[in-house]
Amino acid sequence: MIKEFLMIPGPTPVPDSVLRKMAMPMINHRGKEFAQVLKNVTEKMKKVYLTESDVILLTASGSGGMESAVVNFLSPGDKAIFCVTGAFGDRWAKMGQVYGADVIRIDIPLGEGVTIDVLEDTLKKNPGVKAVYITHNETSTAITNDLSKVGEIAHRYGAIVAVDAVSSLGAIELRMDEWQLDVVVTASQKALMTPPGLAFVAVSERAWELYKSSKMPRFYFDLGEAKRMAVNGETPFTPAVSQVFAIDSALDILLSEGLENSWKRHKLLGKAVREGVKALGLKLLAKEEFASNAVTGVYPPEGILADELRRKVKERGVTLAGGQGALKGKIFRIGHIGYILDTDIIVTLSIIGETLKEMGYNVDPTLGVKRALEVFNEGTNS
Amino acid sequence: MIKEFLMIPGPTPVPDSVLRKMAMPMINHRGKEFAQVLKNVTEKMKKVYLTESDVILLTASGSGGMESAVVNFLSPGDKAIFCVTGAFGDRWAKMGQVYGADVIRIDIPLGEGVTIDVLEDTLKKNPGVKAVYITHNETSTAITNDLSKVGEIAHRYGAIVAVDAVSSLGAIELRMDEWQLDVVVTASQKALMTPPGLAFVAVSERAWELYKSSKMPRFYFDLGEAKRMAVNGETPFTPAVSQVFAIDSALDILLSEGLENSWKRHKLLGKAVREGVKALGLKLLAKEEFASNAVTGVYPPEGILADELRRKVKERGVTLAGGQGALKGKIFRIGHIGYILDTDIIVTLSIIGETLKEMGYNVDPTLGVKRALEVFNEGTNS
Repeated sequence: MIKEFLMIPGPTPVPDSVLRKMAMPMINHRGKEFAQVLKNVTEKMKKVYLTESDVILLTASGSGGMESAVVNFLSPGDKAIFCVTGAFGDRWAKMGQVYGADVIRIDIPLGEGVTIDVLEDTLKKNPGVKAVYITHNETSTAITNDLSKVGEIAHRYGAIVAVDAVSSLGAIELRMDEWQLDVVVTASQKALMTPPGLAFVAVSERAWELYKSSKMPRFYFDLGEAKRMAVNGETPFTPAVSQVFAIDSALDILLSEGLENSWKRHKLLGKAVREGVKALGLKLLAKEEFASNAVTGVYPPEGILADELRRKVKERGVTLAGGQGALKGKIFRIGHIGYILDTDIIVTLSIIGETLKEMGYNVDPTLGVKRALEVFNEGTNS
Repeated sequence: MIKEFLMIPGPTPVPDSVLRKMAMPMINHRGKEFAQVLKNVTEKMKKVYLTESDVILLTASGSGGMESAVVNFLSPGDKAIFCVTGAFGDRWAKMGQVYGADVIRIDIPLGEGVTIDVLEDTLKKNPGVKAVYITHNETSTAITNDLSKVGEIAHRYGAIVAVDAVSSLGAIELRMDEWQLDVVVTASQKALMTPPGLAFVAVSERAWELYKSSKMPRFYFDLGEAKRMAVNGETPFTPAVSQVFAIDSALDILLSEGLENSWKRHKLLGKAVREGVKALGLKLLAKEEFASNAVTGVYPPEGILADELRRKVKERGVTLAGGQGALKGKIFRIGHIGYILDTDIIVTLSIIGETLKEMGYNVDPTLGVKRALEVFNEGTNS
């Protein structure tokens, strides 16, 4: 007998009550009942985005939403800045290339984030940039980029800002309207505690202006068509009905916890994991000032292979993620996003400690749990 | 209290045992367990396609699969024939236009199918056509195109054949390899008895050859990348894990009934609906020789509005589909595809009869049921 702990940065564990919605019988996706659910989900998503802008639902992974943020706002030859802080930023830049944008990359060392100075410098050197693409939380390197000033700077240089908030929205502070963000992409399977299959794209008025002149080809990911259909509570194509039911219920859980409380919880989870891992003597991938509160990247001790550690930890019920891209096999990642509580962190750190010891690493395996508990107790009392 | 009968051409009713798979907890989509399920689903899908070719899974609606069949095999300026027998054929042709193909449309009157002569004639008049796009079952007009000779003819003129089998595969005879079809698109929510969210694209060697030279832009729908990742049991982007679990189980149901038995069942369902509706004195949209065994389009009697009839029938528990495109408000459609048995048809015809009478149509409301039962009895005894 084993209990499973899914500690990866997505798909994340789904609460039982939400899973049960996944099993609801099918209905007509062009009928009144579905229209009402779609409307409810859209209204709740606006509260999570902290926006008055349109929120478009797509039946796709988060990467489909990212592609829509390229093809709906640019034309071939348009200059666009892509901030690359890891595999997902790199993916977005490649999408820009494939569709013929004039891609200006800002490549950041792994484990660090984009500073506002670097961004402004790049905008200054490249007049006429139409859009800045930036990852909010880069799961591959376990860092978070501060977005609070990005909108203001980009607008000053006449560019819109598109944000990959796939692994952040709902977990890490993001204020779309206040921060003047124009296109914000997210997906169902991270902080929103719903199985994968849905992407969401929130679009500002400034971005819709750019949409009018955009000439990249698009059909399935045409956001304007989706906006037109949404007026009548429909989607252009058959939606993933089950996930729409499920997220309607998952968003109730998130909003009843409260968005700011969820941000606080993730802040504490992130700190507890980082401190716990360090107490076990392990090195973090991300620089502290950029460290993500949704996922933590960790180097295994010398002489222990990351993927071997993951395999052994998995046998005890805890699933960790591996490294991506250049970091494949070099690190392991602990996801702590969505339906994750202090108890999950305690189990995870305990099993990592025990397994490391078993693999010959000389450490008191309880140090991680001990330190995490201190962090949780301080957090609860503060 | 009411019992619901979802008689639309998709999403179709999902068996309870399959719905329960939708509620399974999340797992790592980059782990061994998921790789095994993906492999199982792919192998079972090959049996439904009757092919040895690659079957690619996409997290998208059927229309996403259709888009992939355009952007992976053509280059801008390439000549391609689009057979338009209704709204879905029209949608495919529009995708071709958006991505810059030289689109040659064969527009067929509503309710009729494409004949092999018309197709050959068009190929003869347009040398250099790269691909023929044809809908197998056109749900909007309730017709089925005979595909048995299309591959042979297209290949004779140097073109590949791409088929929209979204609302046919598993329900209506389609033999991919025997009929020399090159790209065959389907989706989870029709005959495959699974909630929407997955598209499948089967790709022949001849089509992969064309892929190599294709220059249309693609990223999320890049089938070559999906093929490369599938070797290790992965998808390029986070898949709709729940639907993958569900379809694994739904395909067991379909394959244990037997593919040919499923074709036979749908043939009988189609005949019973058409005969039953005619016995009520109503007119069919489709010409008999093209009539679909997955969906039936029906004109309401004079003086009765199609959508008003649908609304009243829905109050009694039966959901019918409306008209699409030019047929909006003019017809109603009865879906009889997937997890549908004779009992569903009996209820549907009974309620349509009762409702028509209530709305002032002078008919013996039991005539539809009576005739359908005759068809079922003949079918069972033959």
